[in-house]
Amino acid sequence: MTLPSSAVLQALKKSASSMAIRDTPFIYNEWYVAAFAHEVGRDFLARILLGKRVVLFRTETGQAVALADRCAHRAYPLSLGKLEGDTIVCGYHGFRFNTDGNCVEVPSSSKCPKELGVARYKVAERGPLIWIWMGDPALADAAKIIQYPWHRDPAWAYKGKCTTINAHYQLLYDNLMDLSHVGYVHKNTIGGEPEAHSNAQMKTTRTADGVHVIRWLLDSTPPPTYSAMFDFKGRVDRWIEIEFSPGAVRLYTGAKDAGAGAYEGNRDGGLGLRTLHAITPSTPDSTYYFWSIARNVKLDNQDIHEKVFRQIEATFHEDKLILESQHQRLKQRPDPLVDIAADAGAVQARRVITERIKEEAAVRSPSIS
Amino acid sequence: MTLPSSAVLQALKKSASSMAIRDTPFIYNEWYVAAFAHEVGRDFLARILLGKRVVLFRTETGQAVALADRCAHRAYPLSLGKLEGDTIVCGYHGFRFNTDGNCVEVPSSSKCPKELGVARYKVAERGPLIWIWMGDPALADAAKIIQYPWHRDPAWAYKGKCTTINAHYQLLYDNLMDLSHVGYVHKNTIGGEPEAHSNAQMKTTRTADGVHVIRWLLDSTPPPTYSAMFDFKGRVDRWIEIEFSPGAVRLYTGAKDAGAGAYEGNRDGGLGLRTLHAITPSTPDSTYYFWSIARNVKLDNQDIHEKVFRQIEATFHEDKLILESQHQRLKQRPDPLVDIAADAGAVQARRVITERIKEEAAVRSPSIS
Amino acid sequence: MTLPSSAVLQALKKSASSMAIRDTPFIYNEWYVAAFAHEVGRDFLARILLGKRVVLFRTETGQAVALADRCAHRAYPLSLGKLEGDTIVCGYHGFRFNTDGNCVEVPSSSKCPKELGVARYKVAERGPLIWIWMGDPALADAAKIIQYPWHRDPAWAYKGKCTTINAHYQLLYDNLMDLSHVGYVHKNTIGGEPEAHSNAQMKTTRTADGVHVIRWLLDSTPPPTYSAMFDFKGRVDRWIEIEFSPGAVRLYTGAKDAGAGAYEGNRDGGLGLRTLHAITPSTPDSTYYFWSIARNVKLDNQDIHEKVFRQIEATFHEDKLILESQHQRLKQRPDPLVDIAADAGAVQARRVITERIKEEAAVRSPSIS
Repeated sequence: MTLPSSAVLQALKKSASSMAIRDTPFIYNEWYVAAFAHEVGRDFLARILLGKRVVLFRTETGQAVALADRCAHRAYPLSLGKLEGDTIVCGYHGFRFNTDGNCVEVPSSSKCPKELGVARYKVAERGPLIWIWMGDPALADAAKIIQYPWHRDPAWAYKGKCTTINAHYQLLYDNLMDLSHVGYVHKNTIGGEPEAHSNAQMKTTRTADGVHVIRWLLDSTPPPTYSAMFDFKGRVDRWIEIEFSPGAVRLYTGAKDAGAGAYEGNRDGGLGLRTLHAITPSTPDSTYYFWSIARNVKLDNQDIHEKVFRQIEATFHEDKLILESQHQRLKQRPDPLVDIAADAGAVQARRVITERIKEEAAVRSPSIS
Repeated sequence: MTLPSSAVLQALKKSASSMAIRDTPFIYNEWYVAAFAHEVGRDFLARILLGKRVVLFRTETGQAVALADRCAHRAYPLSLGKLEGDTIVCGYHGFRFNTDGNCVEVPSSSKCPKELGVARYKVAERGPLIWIWMGDPALADAAKIIQYPWHRDPAWAYKGKCTTINAHYQLLYDNLMDLSHVGYVHKNTIGGEPEAHSNAQMKTTRTADGVHVIRWLLDSTPPPTYSAMFDFKGRVDRWIEIEFSPGAVRLYTGAKDAGAGAYEGNRDGGLGLRTLHAITPSTPDSTYYFWSIARNVKLDNQDIHEKVFRQIEATFHEDKLILESQHQRLKQRPDPLVDIAADAGAVQARRVITERIKEEAAVRSPSIS
Repeated sequence: MTLPSSAVLQALKKSASSMAIRDTPFIYNEWYVAAFAHEVGRDFLARILLGKRVVLFRTETGQAVALADRCAHRAYPLSLGKLEGDTIVCGYHGFRFNTDGNCVEVPSSSKCPKELGVARYKVAERGPLIWIWMGDPALADAAKIIQYPWHRDPAWAYKGKCTTINAHYQLLYDNLMDLSHVGYVHKNTIGGEPEAHSNAQMKTTRTADGVHVIRWLLDSTPPPTYSAMFDFKGRVDRWIEIEFSPGAVRLYTGAKDAGAGAYEGNRDGGLGLRTLHAITPSTPDSTYYFWSIARNVKLDNQDIHEKVFRQIEATFHEDKLILESQHQRLKQRPDPLVDIAADAGAVQARRVITERIKEEAAVRSPSIS
């Protein structure tokens, strides 16, 4: 279903954005990135994911494990205890838990009470990412983790990072779904001409599990980041594809010499970029932001590799400042926002999230409470 | 109407002071000082006034402008954007607003939605002060700004400052209306003898828009600050006139040799001081305090000029410490306060404020919500 | 009444620990330690005790006095005023209060309003401790202050300290009543073998005003702290007696060579220790912890004296870290805790406190509100 921007606007103005950020809960029945694979090892990693404290570690054979980070006995954080083999020993009274979260030893007692245990969350490792499912365990299906082949494709080189944004996760989606901010916020890095962004052709489509937006900046000046990677002849045709599904935004962008056929369908011989934005709500006021940037050119050039990463890092730091100011302002005075045509994608994404949360509330299983 | 202190006391003991500070809202239909004139220029000045975020700046021709500091689109602070000519460009998506607060450009769209705009607040510049009206625009009448000619009278020299007091504005009025604290809090600066203050004659009068208090300290020792400015023969007759109206307290004080006729009505040939205390609520927990001190003696003596300013600055810092401790204590335990005779002026001022707030609540216009 | 651990468990599992810490108020009708005697003098000591601000000082003849730390007039802290003879002069308007809390002077007025006064709390000095009663004054009976003769017995040497723990007081009782944590938290100081602690024999008894627990660690290795004080032949029989009553836990501990008759009743010739843990709630999130350690050996050895004190200080700092982490976790998610056999003493102590609070609520006198 393709939605003409103006119709979207008219229809959604009242419903979507009047949802104050503080009222937005989380979707639980979804796979989220919990950590980069290299962050999880034999030392405990403690994170707050979807409002719950989680301790992550690897077994002796390297399997990633995620448990509730709170001893069942006296609520002491398990992440302050120690790992012995594949069991966690609580630092307060020595209670021992296995990787299923079951209590297997109470030092002061000859047996463990049956009910004594902590939640274990399913995790799935995919390339450099560890995904977690914190919803109803019966619904966890690792086959539904979104595809992101570019992390393991030899034709692409990538580098990523985990950042904390002290803002509500919805604001991150808003930011990514409406890229008309790029010309203003990122004018010194990936920006290019503000006018080109603002006048870009945009098509917003609802997909099976999310929203797809495609924007074309035809015959525009390539931004500094692009020129650093690729030798364009002059002006370029530039594309920005945004693929949203709850938990992540995938950006497929790139550029090719103007008029060289990209718009007609042939992007070969151009610069291609893939940016993953995995967005994992931590608290209502903070969000883990796992991102990576992959490119299909100059794979072995370490200078370019580092430079592209640094520029994207600087770019996303610009977003971080914006989002945190905006979050503070909205907390002080959660008045409704106003949507315009360029927000069509953001409005659709909010609608997807709202629907999913409503669905979950209707059939809430006790295991996710 | 002159009120005998004891009658005031009896009548008001229960009503006025039991009003817990946290329940006191603001009077909106009033002129308040927003800034000293020199604080507002081509760089944005962001302030929270009466609980609302405001951005202040000057147009190219020097006109002061005050707008709501929140882009209508995504709530990003306008004060983090930039000034181009006489328009503000939002730093997030480039929305442009004119000095009336109307949106005049949405970069991603060919036209601006009609409803897209931010509040503009009326301002009036008077000498070194910029006044703002944040209530019902229909009621704004710059002719009602209180008179304070001493800022522009060549027979007087003044210097002022803006300080933030982390306390409820009501406590500032209490402090200024009951000067029996002067002998205790300010004994090393403007204090003089505690007994003289406490035994001072006091007359409290309700005026058209506020309260007038006059106190005489007859035949008393001049305080150090006074002696630094003026050569008294010995003991003095000292007067303190307090003129309260919502938004400001004007203090007309001075001293003349004891028995030289000041009490009978002739203050000529004495030391005269004018102190403005403009009090602008920021949040329920903080207040902007714009003050200035003017004198009618040794106008060209820069040493005296600086010394008087520094002494008053030190004096008001003593008040700041008192008020902030008191505010913290009242927040922890908002028990009723007890009023005594010396509080007659403070009690009257609270009554004026309470009445005004009640009046506004009764006929609240949607434009001030 | 001796309670078999398993029966305790079964009976109390649901009732006691599901009481979320944030819902627990204070027992007011009880004597609490307000300060060490040496902390109170002619300079004001300001403390928050049972949620109320108190100012402590001594009269000219050395009598300890405790008043509400809030001037009745404008709520300014009295502890920021000054002491003149045996009266406090408020630092704001000079109001003067005597040691009964009565206002005896209002500088600006010839007489004091009758109702003008601040609460005075009864205090009782016992050796190095000043106890306070903040409940119904009619029920204050200094004869009911718990006995602790070892502070004044020449056969014992002691040293103590006041620490603030940023945790709910209930968690301190939990910690002290279940010493199975000693082997884990304090393994480098007073710990000894975790197994010995966990397998210790334990008997829990309800007393007239509290709970008594006795634990025996037979034939165990003496911990480093013990060996530093006493020359054991090798393994020891070690006893831990815990005496709880609201406001304090008294620990009577010690060890004697294994099989030398201690368990049968003769502790003579062994190492004896007395530890006072006086626990005074400050706010729901913080607690004053007054502790002292006394020993019956090497009384004149200053090296041992200092060393024992430092080791206990380090030990209790380990507890502080545990308790503050636990408190933070429980505040974030106040889920019920699970009790096991070793918690029998803690569960009983909670029950005593709950009962006492319920009793007070039923017959609350207006004077404690």
